[in-house]
Amino acid sequence: MDFSSFVTSLATSFVIFLVLMLIFNWLQRRPGNAVIYYPSRILRGLDPLEGRKATRNPFAWIREAVSASEADVIAAAGVDAAVYLVFLCSGTAYMLLAILVLSGIVLLPVLLPVAATVLTRPSSSDSNSEEGFENLDKLTMGHVHKGSPRLWAFLLGVYWVSFATYYVLWKAYRHVSNLRAGAKSSEEVRPEEFAILVRDIPATASGQSIKDQVESYFRSLHPETFHKSMVVTDNTEANKIWAEIEGYKKKLARAEAVYAESKTTGKPDGIRPTNRLGFLGLAGEKVDTIEHCNQKLKELVPKLEAEQSITLREKQQQAAIVFFNSKTAAASAAQTIHSQNVDTWTVMEAPEPRQLIWTNLPKKFYERQIRASAIYGLVFLTVVFYMIPITFVSGFTTVENLKKYLSFTKKIVDQPEIRTVLEAYLPQLALIVFLALLPGFLMFLSKQEGIPSESHAARAASGKYFYFIVFNVFLGVTIGGALIDSLKTIVNHPSEIVTLLGASLPKSATFFLTFVALKFFVGYGLELSRIVPLIIFHIKRRFLCKTEAEVREAWAPGDFGYATRIPVDILIVTIVLCYSVIAPIIIPFGVMYFGLGWLIARNQALKVYVPRYESYGRMWPHIHLRIIAALIVYQVSTFGYIGLRKFVYAPFLIPAIVFSFIFAFVCRKRFYLAFAHTPLEVVASQGKKEVPNMEAIYTAYIPQCLVNDKFEDSDMFEDAHSQSLRTTSF
Amino acid sequence: MDFSSFVTSLATSFVIFLVLMLIFNWLQRRPGNAVIYYPSRILRGLDPLEGRKATRNPFAWIREAVSASEADVIAAAGVDAAVYLVFLCSGTAYMLLAILVLSGIVLLPVLLPVAATVLTRPSSSDSNSEEGFENLDKLTMGHVHKGSPRLWAFLLGVYWVSFATYYVLWKAYRHVSNLRAGAKSSEEVRPEEFAILVRDIPATASGQSIKDQVESYFRSLHPETFHKSMVVTDNTEANKIWAEIEGYKKKLARAEAVYAESKTTGKPDGIRPTNRLGFLGLAGEKVDTIEHCNQKLKELVPKLEAEQSITLREKQQQAAIVFFNSKTAAASAAQTIHSQNVDTWTVMEAPEPRQLIWTNLPKKFYERQIRASAIYGLVFLTVVFYMIPITFVSGFTTVENLKKYLSFTKKIVDQPEIRTVLEAYLPQLALIVFLALLPGFLMFLSKQEGIPSESHAARAASGKYFYFIVFNVFLGVTIGGALIDSLKTIVNHPSEIVTLLGASLPKSATFFLTFVALKFFVGYGLELSRIVPLIIFHIKRRFLCKTEAEVREAWAPGDFGYATRIPVDILIVTIVLCYSVIAPIIIPFGVMYFGLGWLIARNQALKVYVPRYESYGRMWPHIHLRIIAALIVYQVSTFGYIGLRKFVYAPFLIPAIVFSFIFAFVCRKRFYLAFAHTPLEVVASQGKKEVPNMEAIYTAYIPQCLVNDKFEDSDMFEDAHSQSLRTTSF
Repeated sequence: MDFSSFVTSLATSFVIFLVLMLIFNWLQRRPGNAVIYYPSRILRGLDPLEGRKATRNPFAWIREAVSASEADVIAAAGVDAAVYLVFLCSGTAYMLLAILVLSGIVLLPVLLPVAATVLTRPSSSDSNSEEGFENLDKLTMGHVHKGSPRLWAFLLGVYWVSFATYYVLWKAYRHVSNLRAGAKSSEEVRPEEFAILVRDIPATASGQSIKDQVESYFRSLHPETFHKSMVVTDNTEANKIWAEIEGYKKKLARAEAVYAESKTTGKPDGIRPTNRLGFLGLAGEKVDTIEHCNQKLKELVPKLEAEQSITLREKQQQAAIVFFNSKTAAASAAQTIHSQNVDTWTVMEAPEPRQLIWTNLPKKFYERQIRASAIYGLVFLTVVFYMIPITFVSGFTTVENLKKYLSFTKKIVDQPEIRTVLEAYLPQLALIVFLALLPGFLMFLSKQEGIPSESHAARAASGKYFYFIVFNVFLGVTIGGALIDSLKTIVNHPSEIVTLLGASLPKSATFFLTFVALKFFVGYGLELSRIVPLIIFHIKRRFLCKTEAEVREAWAPGDFGYATRIPVDILIVTIVLCYSVIAPIIIPFGVMYFGLGWLIARNQALKVYVPRYESYGRMWPHIHLRIIAALIVYQVSTFGYIGLRKFVYAPFLIPAIVFSFIFAFVCRKRFYLAFAHTPLEVVASQGKKEVPNMEAIYTAYIPQCLVNDKFEDSDMFEDAHSQSLRTTSF
Repeated sequence: MDFSSFVTSLATSFVIFLVLMLIFNWLQRRPGNAVIYYPSRILRGLDPLEGRKATRNPFAWIREAVSASEADVIAAAGVDAAVYLVFLCSGTAYMLLAILVLSGIVLLPVLLPVAATVLTRPSSSDSNSEEGFENLDKLTMGHVHKGSPRLWAFLLGVYWVSFATYYVLWKAYRHVSNLRAGAKSSEEVRPEEFAILVRDIPATASGQSIKDQVESYFRSLHPETFHKSMVVTDNTEANKIWAEIEGYKKKLARAEAVYAESKTTGKPDGIRPTNRLGFLGLAGEKVDTIEHCNQKLKELVPKLEAEQSITLREKQQQAAIVFFNSKTAAASAAQTIHSQNVDTWTVMEAPEPRQLIWTNLPKKFYERQIRASAIYGLVFLTVVFYMIPITFVSGFTTVENLKKYLSFTKKIVDQPEIRTVLEAYLPQLALIVFLALLPGFLMFLSKQEGIPSESHAARAASGKYFYFIVFNVFLGVTIGGALIDSLKTIVNHPSEIVTLLGASLPKSATFFLTFVALKFFVGYGLELSRIVPLIIFHIKRRFLCKTEAEVREAWAPGDFGYATRIPVDILIVTIVLCYSVIAPIIIPFGVMYFGLGWLIARNQALKVYVPRYESYGRMWPHIHLRIIAALIVYQVSTFGYIGLRKFVYAPFLIPAIVFSFIFAFVCRKRFYLAFAHTPLEVVASQGKKEVPNMEAIYTAYIPQCLVNDKFEDSDMFEDAHSQSLRTTSF
């Protein structure tokens, strides 16, 4: 890729971004679109356009995003969103933007002149600077003579970036830790704070129900604080019936709406909607939909009730949720080992009811371990072998190949303007499309591990995705097709990887510059303008939605999707850090990426996304560790690169790598456990302790498919559990 | 070393052993020696020779050792000793002896004939079998042809040994876990079960004493269960004065005894003992000892009292022991994170009062980490560079060198009998002497890490010692002088170590055979006969001891000294496992080592050693892990050796190595946490809960140097802590 295509790609990206901004400004003011641009505000019962109609200022959203306080963000989208914003950059804790700004302040004015003012070109034997760089080359380290004392500036630059990172990360971790503590110590009564999750309940003595066993065990160990227990049941069957009922209810509502609509159009009787019972509603007997649904519902409701009783009595599993009558008792119990056999009666803090993955709860201790190991193996294979198609795709998506294999495109491609644009975008576009395919698969794998909560599964999927993109995008592009061969060398001579990375990084500088620019101009443009959800919503509303509930479903905004968002951001961190000294010109792009990202994420947090769960920033240690990993990759690769430039003082970089490990260790010791468990101080810090409504806390954990009017209060639900003995003894 | 010197060494070892046995039998029957052979029984107030005078059977001690139950051992020497016996071998859990017996049953009858019946000698190019083996050679794997299918027998032998080890280790871990749970759940009131150790107390607000801060913090978090707290003070000064007082008290008692003795011999007035005040009592003014001591004591006692008040008021440190009114509350609090800042208010189970290392308690969180890292570095250097003198010594202690450097020994050495004995023993003796120098140093280092209890320090020292002997004795002898060169290769090509180990092991087979034999015949002979303590005691009693207390001190038996005993035993495990297939003839020696060791350790546990502390088998996970490590070293080195014999099926051993890692992981998950913490089930399992005497529990933790008659009860001691504010505000 030459310089002109780089500039072209930047320019077109920017034009696309401007166009998307204009579209956004035009669309968001139309009231019909409020559900797309302000769903979060609407769901919280606020006026979506509060005071906006008066102002025609297209940058009003920026003012709003900047002026909102962190408390507003927490109120709108939860602690997780606030923590994600801290990650991007934030008024109080700086963070990524801050790292880059701090780096840029020093590196740009120092390193660019140092590189650019080298008078003679390096000798022609210097192959690193020949490839991939042309005009941009003058601004990079490749331009500096081998062994030149000017390399000191670059070496010290690494230290500056490292210490800026440590400082910012430390402040951010402390800030997030306080955010978490603050949110957790609020007086609000949250069911999960009074409950613990108990798994691996040992086999019961014959004649004793699991419910009885759990009760007697916990009552004896926590005689004063134990409240109640709820044994996890196998709800598969009940869930199926419940889903069927819900389906028929929806169908009924829809049919009634259609019927009511048909009445107004001249015929006062209207047309009763009908459907066929066979395959996909296309074949089989034709029935009146309303009658059919009503009849089905009449059949299914008693069936569900019967199934509920059977489930509660006979389908008890080896897991339970145990309730305590105070937050401190629950927090303390969740951290205490209960049994001498550590693989039985394992306890942990209960996840929120809304994010429990019920089917994973009864999975056994060793089954979970085996599943996790098997899935790590599978992910390893996926990570390594996904590269094969990716290599193929990026080899294929060159203009020459396009002409060769798709000959009909030849005419278009031969036009110089289109050719330049295609050359600039094709490989990056292929990459971005490719990355979109994976997250669902990784989330599925993570849930298969036996993880009990959605937020934990998102964290696990995010970790897997990060490995994937670092290996396949960062290493894949950098080291390129030679990766598999290189791997062999690396396994035998682990120290080679440093040299290899150092030698390969500069070649891909322009690729990653374009990648980052594309990501933020086009990616953020699409994110803010919400073109895709908007179009889908309008299509659905026009052609599919009949009832109010269906419309509501059509504009449901979803949540942030941290599992894919965070790994991509950390990939950008890795890229920007790795090039920060070798080609400091990347820093402004990084600053723009995170600055713009922060603005837009704030806007989305305040107005669009609705969190599906709250993990109180539990994601943070995960992010923190990966940023440090990125920093270490950066230090190691720069060490390799400076070493290749025959700079004898390159080993002065080794202490920086050691510092990073020490920093990671200190941070873990200082902060981590308070994220893994709930410190007693935090839950006990509320002023006066009112006795909470234990009834509501218990009820919150009853799964939807087992909710039944028959159970007038939670005691009756509880009794249904315990009846097993009395029933089976007949 | 040739075959004849091997047999000579065995024979002489055996003779020495027999002689020591005879000495033991003769000496132990003399009543004057009871304090050496039965001190534990005496201290527990039992008749040392109960029913023994009647029987003249020299093997009566064996019958007693075998017939005692595990409960007897626990009563006599604590759970730690019982666990150590489980480690050696035991009636219920088998263990090392069992591993070796199981291995021997299969390996000896199968592998020896397989090796011995090879008809033709391997080709002369086969250098491995040439060195180090002569007559013994026929019984080893080196005798089997390269690539011969007979190697299958050896390969399967590795699997048999591995699975025997897993089985026995699993049973033993379960047994020890039950032992621990049983001992911990006894109804006995132990102060440490009601207390937790709190460290890293944050800086106090001005005007608040640490004591007040601790009280208010824990009272707010554990309002119902908090009892009292004791802030750790800096006792250096008080301790010094207290030690001085104790010294003068002893001196006074001694002088009075001498004076009383002098009275009987004709002169009714006697001679009042005198001493000089100057250097070592040799120079300076001559004073009457009794008067001088009395006067000194009169000066020091008020000084101590003053110092005690100052210590309690003004020398409070950032650590405390916090008492709860129930065992479950304490166990639960010790496992719960208290502060959002995980590096403050760190809690752990309180160690026993007798094993607290007071000076380590106030050490800060990060100070402990830094100390630990620094000491790991130091230990690494010690481990690696101790080898240099060891190599020198083992090179020096050959008969040739002895003649060369110490020419006066030439005549003695030239006599053939002496020469053979010397050749057999010199290198091993040098090694054993060398190993005796280190433990003290390692224990000192371990205490410097900031570890709060003696048993933990012993564990840490034991770990260090194990690394040391594996590296220096096992690897040092096996790979020999080429180790440093080999290390270079290994760092660059990690896979080389397998080949290197495989190639080097067989050469040292006879050395280790002799080493094991020497260890058990001479080592155990000395252990059982207690010749050294006996001689020291008789000398002391005759020439030094004047008072009853001094005599009592002279025969104090000490404890087992696990810190050095266990690593040596695990070294023997490593050696025996590593040779079990290559030269199965080593198995009977291993069986004898552990069988005899068990007998003798049992005898010593029942009659001799008095435990200084009790850690309820906390050492076990440590032992377990190292045995698995030994097993893995064995599997890897045999893999290397079989590979060298050009056996294409050698990779079939790799699954065995994987199994070992899985086994280690499963054991850790299944058992470890119950050793690191106290499960709630265990402390709550006592039947009725009587309110314990909290007064006695609190008093048990008052350090000796702060005990004062002025404090009539613990409340007054506690008040002395809290007076700081009132006093300093004047």
